[in-house]
Parts: sequence; C-alpha cells; structure tokens
Amino acid sequence: MKCRKCGEKAAVNMRQHKLALCRQHFLEWIPEQTQRFIEKYHMFGRGDRILAAVSGGKDSLSLWDVLLRLGYAVDGLHINLGIDGGLRYSEESQRLAQRFADERGLGLITVNVAEVEGAAIPEAAALTRRGQLKPCSLCGLTKRYIMNRVARDGGYDVLVTGHNLDDEAAVLFGNALSWSAGYLARQGPVLEASSDGLARKAKPFCRIYERETAAYALLRGIEYIYDECPFAEGATSLYYKGILNRMEADRPGLKLSFYLSFLEAKRAGLLASQQAAAEPGLHPCQSCGQPTSAPGQCAYCRTWHRVRERKGEKAPTEQP
Amino acid sequence: MKCRKCGEKAAVNMRQHKLALCRQHFLEWIPEQTQRFIEKYHMFGRGDRILAAVSGGKDSLSLWDVLLRLGYAVDGLHINLGIDGGLRYSEESQRLAQRFADERGLGLITVNVAEVEGAAIPEAAALTRRGQLKPCSLCGLTKRYIMNRVARDGGYDVLVTGHNLDDEAAVLFGNALSWSAGYLARQGPVLEASSDGLARKAKPFCRIYERETAAYALLRGIEYIYDECPFAEGATSLYYKGILNRMEADRPGLKLSFYLSFLEAKRAGLLASQQAAAEPGLHPCQSCGQPTSAPGQCAYCRTWHRVRERKGEKAPTEQP
Repeated sequence: MKCRKCGEKAAVNMRQHKLALCRQHFLEWIPEQTQRFIEKYHMFGRGDRILAAVSGGKDSLSLWDVLLRLGYAVDGLHINLGIDGGLRYSEESQRLAQRFADERGLGLITVNVAEVEGAAIPEAAALTRRGQLKPCSLCGLTKRYIMNRVARDGGYDVLVTGHNLDDEAAVLFGNALSWSAGYLARQGPVLEASSDGLARKAKPFCRIYERETAAYALLRGIEYIYDECPFAEGATSLYYKGILNRMEADRPGLKLSFYLSFLEAKRAGLLASQQAAAEPGLHPCQSCGQPTSAPGQCAYCRTWHRVRERKGEKAPTEQP
Repeated sequence: MKCRKCGEKAAVNMRQHKLALCRQHFLEWIPEQTQRFIEKYHMFGRGDRILAAVSGGKDSLSLWDVLLRLGYAVDGLHINLGIDGGLRYSEESQRLAQRFADERGLGLITVNVAEVEGAAIPEAAALTRRGQLKPCSLCGLTKRYIMNRVARDGGYDVLVTGHNLDDEAAVLFGNALSWSAGYLARQGPVLEASSDGLARKAKPFCRIYERETAAYALLRGIEYIYDECPFAEGATSLYYKGILNRMEADRPGLKLSFYLSFLEAKRAGLLASQQAAAEPGLHPCQSCGQPTSAPGQCAYCRTWHRVRERKGEKAPTEQP
C-alpha cells in the first residue's frame, strides 16, 4: 500500500476514506481535517481562549497537540478522579498529562477531586445510591461540573474535549435505540453556551475515527495511558462501540455516515420541534451558583454534600 | 419451565416478556395480544372488510389465521412473482397459500405477475437497470402496486400485511442508521389512506417477535414455506436482523423497546416537522390512474412498459 500523496510506503490505511498515507502525510492530514471541522461547525476562532479537558489518553493529548500545531491558544485541564483499580489509573493519567504539558511549557490546571471534596470517586460512589453499582454516573456528573466551573471561572471562550467519532457514534447509537429526544436534540459538534452559565463546548475530533487518533498519538510519539478506566468494563457505551465496530468492518464508513446523516437530518429540522423541550430552564444553584435545572441545590452539591455526611457517619469515633 | 397461566409444561419461553406458556395458552395469548394492538393503534373494526397480503410464509398465514379466530372478515391476496431459484419458491408459496384458503373455505385472490405483465420478476429485473444486480427493488415496487390496486378495486377498508417486530425493527434500524426523515415519519403500525388513492395499511403483528409467529404457525399446525426468497441472500435487511438478533440475545427485549420508544417519540412530536415533507403530492398516473408522485406515468407503468419493450427487442425474429 502506497501513500496517496507521495507514493512512499503507507503507514496508515483508512478503508473508511479509501485513503492510505505515509507517516508524514498522515501527521499533516489530521490537523488539516481538524481545522476543516473547526471551521465547518464554527467551533472557535484564532483569537479565542481555549480550555482542553485532558485525561491523559490518546484522544485528548492528540487533540491538544493538534490544536497547538494549528496555532490555537490552549490551556489544559486535568481532573484527578482518584481511581486506582490495581493499575494506578488516575496517578498514571495525571503523570502523562503533566509530562505532556511540562515538555512543551504549557499551562495545565489540575483539580484533585479527593482534595477538593474530601473523597475520591470510588469511595464517594460507594456512599451514594447513584454510584453503588458503578461510579460512572457520579464520575460523569463530577467531571462535567468541574470542567464547566473551571472554563467559566477562567474566562475561557470554549471548552474542548477529545471525543472522537467512535465515541459520538456510540452515544448516538444508544440515543437512537431509546429514541431519547432531548439527548438527540443536544448532541452535536458544538454545544452553545447558555445565557445562564453553561460554557460553550466543542469536539474538534468528532469526525476522526478512534483508530486515527490512536495512530496519530503513536506516530507523533505522544506517550498516553493505554488502559481503559478500570470501571469501564461492561459499560453500555463499550458494548455499542463493539456493535458499531462489527458493522464498520462489514461496511467501511458506516460510523461516519451514521453520524453525518444524523447531523444533516438535524440541520434539515428533523428534531427541531424538540429543541425547546431539550433545554430546561436553568437557574443558579443555591449553594455554588452554577446553573442547574434541579430545584434548590444542583445535583453536584447535593450529591457531594451527602457523601460528606455519610462519610462523617461512617468515620470511626474521634479520639478525645 | 412452567406455563405462567396453568403450571403445565411450557411450550414457549419468551425471555423478552419474562413469560413462558404452554401450547394452549400460547395459542390464546397471540390472538389476545394481536387484538390489543389492533385496538391500541386503531387498525380496523369488526365491520371492516380486510384484505390480507398472503405470501405463504409463517407470518402472513399466521396473521390470517389469527384474524379469522378473532372474528374478522378477511380475504387473502397472493401474488405469484415467478421466482424459482432451484426450489420452486413461488410455486410452492402459492400452493401453500391456496391450500390454507381451500381447507378453510376462504376467498383467495391470486395475481400472477408473468400472466399479467408478460414476464416474471427475475426475467423482468434482468431487463431493467433497476434490477440488474438484485430483483428486490422491482419486486417491492410490483408487490406494493398490485396490493394497492387490488385493495382499492375490491373496495377493501384496509390492507394488512404480516410484518412482524423483527421486520419493523430491521427497517427502523436501517432508517435510523441513515436518518431518513421521510421513511422515519411514515413508519408505524398504520399508514392512513390518502385522499388520492393509497389504500389504508396496517400491520397487526408489528409487536410480535418473529420467533413468536414461527412458534404460532408450528403449534397451530399451519403448513408454510420455510425457505427465504432465494434473492434475499445478502440483503441489507437480513444483515440488520442479524445485528439486532445479537443485541437481543445480550439484552432481551431490546428490539421491542427500540420499536416502542420510536413510536412514543413520534407520538410526542419528535418527527412532526417532517410529516408534511414525507407526503409528496400525488396525482393519478396517466396510464393506469393509480396515485403516483412521479410526473406522467407511475414507476410501475414506466418500468413494466420498458420491460415489455426490451423483451420485444430481444425476442427471436417471428416466423413468417
């Protein structure tokens, strides 16, 4: 297989695009594509201050790298969730994110959940009904909250995440199987800021396949954490990814056409009537001031307040 | 496994409903369920004249049987497509449909495509661009046309087809993968008659799993054709059925919840804005008078006219 651009030996063959490229041209192609999608979906401009949520995995580190190469001003945000799972998952993730930033002299904001809230995600989850089986729901709530707070408090114009096409297609697949009107209406490459305090969000890699972001990290020599989160095992999103992978193998390009035809149908008004219903009225949380649709306290404050209470109840009697 | 209703040995275990039933109670349960769906979706009433499209397969013969047991007035329509495939597919299908009708003294209208139009489906398909790879497109067009014409000419109130849940879920799956707004807007248990000449259509088995219709035919002793149409091999709809079967095995009830949540989302207005776009303006075909959205002749007349022309061209020179 030869590179379409120079005829040298190809390093990456993308059946879904009928395109094979050598290392050098692949490493040029990914930023070109990303820039195309940034413009096409009006994600952000040259003057914008960008905050990238950086887990330490291949997608977010590759995204940070690509955006820097494209000349954007990007700070990183890493959230340490305190997950060990026998493989020092969070510690290793933070080390790799920090190392990426340090080697390039970049600003990385880090938030350690256990330090801020008094308990790491697994411990906190075990103390709430929400997380007794799996901490994923509490973890998602916590990450979304912290990302939004840091983006707003830091005055960033947009928060970007490394979600790739496989992530987006799997979410869409789940929402289509359950025909969740609200989720379908909200899903897209950009989520606009709301006047009541939700930061603008964008996913520059939403049309890049997972194997392309992995190839990019590999060929760029970016060191990232290979392990999935130890709690991801058995997750529905991974199950849907598996189904989509099987279909993609039989019909190359299926994931991309599934996602693109969804965006096109939305643009044409397919889900328009639900747009209003999809945005519940928000008001400031009475504890933290962040926007919430829940009455009184937001879900984050309510949940973590309960965690601290229960932790107090379960703590051994204080020594006098 | 015991029957939920009488405690006898169960004949059918339906994981998707968490329900096991003995032969007798299963054979009562299917008509009860069917009657529930006929009422829920306002398909037809006791006084209506019903035309059932009967292929000779398990679904349509079971449907005819169930509707008769429920006391409805139902005539059958069988369309002989002239497909052999080495297994006398159409001949055998017609024999079984006719036998079912004769044994019960029922009226069966039969239409033989080769007699009416001068060529059977495979021969005609080979003569048109539309069917050169697969005759399925021409076959579908032809069946839809004949069913509609017979239903209207015979003054029937509704045309029913044996589509089961697996059929409906597979069609929905395909339409969701391509986000086909028009098809999504039209799919449902009932398609209303249009003022311009399309017959009312209903699918009383739309919530009955394929393995339930097969079990019904088997336990009722209905003889049906086991073979799939020889041209179905490799069909996209069968591929989607396979994917859905794998997911159903992992998550019993998935097909049903996929279909029901779609109906619910539609009811709530998810696809409302497309309803208008989904019904193109129809007018009478200038050749046959049946409703069509194509200018001039309808696709059926145009296609079969071309078949006859090409057949004439290819015919050996007439003997003087």
